[in-house]
Amino acid sequence: MAPSDIVTAAVLVIGDEILSGRTKDKNIGYIATWLGELGIQVKEARVVPDIEQEIVEAVNALRARYTYVFTTGGIGPTHDDITADSIAAAFGVGIDHHPEVVKMFEARYDKEMLNEARLRMARIPDGASLIENPISKAPGFRLENVFVMAGIPMLVEAMLESVRGELVGGARVASVSLSAHLAEGDLAKPLGRLQEAYPDVSMGSYPFYRGKRYGVTLVLRSSDLALLEEAAEKVEALMRDLGGEPEIEQG
Amino acid sequence: MAPSDIVTAAVLVIGDEILSGRTKDKNIGYIATWLGELGIQVKEARVVPDIEQEIVEAVNALRARYTYVFTTGGIGPTHDDITADSIAAAFGVGIDHHPEVVKMFEARYDKEMLNEARLRMARIPDGASLIENPISKAPGFRLENVFVMAGIPMLVEAMLESVRGELVGGARVASVSLSAHLAEGDLAKPLGRLQEAYPDVSMGSYPFYRGKRYGVTLVLRSSDLALLEEAAEKVEALMRDLGGEPEIEQG
Repeated sequence: MAPSDIVTAAVLVIGDEILSGRTKDKNIGYIATWLGELGIQVKEARVVPDIEQEIVEAVNALRARYTYVFTTGGIGPTHDDITADSIAAAFGVGIDHHPEVVKMFEARYDKEMLNEARLRMARIPDGASLIENPISKAPGFRLENVFVMAGIPMLVEAMLESVRGELVGGARVASVSLSAHLAEGDLAKPLGRLQEAYPDVSMGSYPFYRGKRYGVTLVLRSSDLALLEEAAEKVEALMRDLGGEPEIEQG
Repeated sequence: MAPSDIVTAAVLVIGDEILSGRTKDKNIGYIATWLGELGIQVKEARVVPDIEQEIVEAVNALRARYTYVFTTGGIGPTHDDITADSIAAAFGVGIDHHPEVVKMFEARYDKEMLNEARLRMARIPDGASLIENPISKAPGFRLENVFVMAGIPMLVEAMLESVRGELVGGARVASVSLSAHLAEGDLAKPLGRLQEAYPDVSMGSYPFYRGKRYGVTLVLRSSDLALLEEAAEKVEALMRDLGGEPEIEQG
């Protein structure tokens, strides 16, 4: 795979509620899987609190480094929703009520309901394009390579679909998983040799305990399907040599 | 709460399998909740791939910034387990087989089983103390303010218990959650005023969809219990004023 084929992304989860442990994050895993299917590899994820300085630093570090950045959380109407302002600050641009969003809100809400707080959700950094939210209407936005989305998983899923057409994927990385009741310590040396023989196939080893039995899942990943298949056959043979009966899954 | 009472932590999850989306992280939420009960506030979390340079950069950024850093993953016997070496590199110290761990392994494994790969798990950076692993024996380690643990959630839980006595917590932050079928847009303005009136009580607003009904959970957090209770009463009254019947949970 040529380096130019590698398209990368970072996920930035914004929210005190994740860091307190009260809400368990589901967005990192979902976004990683969803992007992976488009040939976009998530290379880093961060969770930061609702503090502007922290959001600015993280966004600027990540957007300089990866093809795309996807943020979740902090775009609602309450005082703790500071993501839009923080993104504007990170890019050094202004922020104001976006006429298109205001119009949409005017069509959706009675005059009495369209208060200052709801209008806050129409504040979009200058130069950003909107990300449609087909469910609760309040949109996300895109500024350069940064996609700003809501925090509720259902809304994240919908907003990702809204931007699918804007994303340019690279080589899709395929995977093969081989699981068996073997010990990592027995596999490690010959597996390391296979990794050396197939530098373009990444080989990860993940031990598990299921019921009371331990085992290991070896995950092979590559954008070269023929090479992946060849390496998987070698790994399967290795596992059988050691007495394992690998369950094999194509990813 | 005096600033000196604030004890902070970061979680660093190391592993390609989380970033590919294949394995969903459970450690960030667990560690955050567990530390919170000790009065240690997780202020940031990161997920990085199995690449030494990335691990080194993240560890050095986080250990300079927070009271404690907890890493998970990458301390097994296979070629992709590079956490111990990366931590040694981050601190600029050597790494070698730790005599105490080698002895423990010699007692646990037959001579034939104690191969080079398993001995790899005895490699501990110079100056580190061991973190007992009562389940699978291969220990974690602590170097200054960095605690290096396994990736399997069951082992993380056990290793945290092993270091409980080493951790010095600060003021414990208590929380009150109030949930009702109200719209954030209606609550936002008066809630913002209450937040201004109680700067030492953080107020977070988290919308939810359950079944087909939307609602919001307001989470109040403070280390000052009397102030927290007072603010919670005001927030409850606000929610009732708006027609909500809040379910209240003490955290």
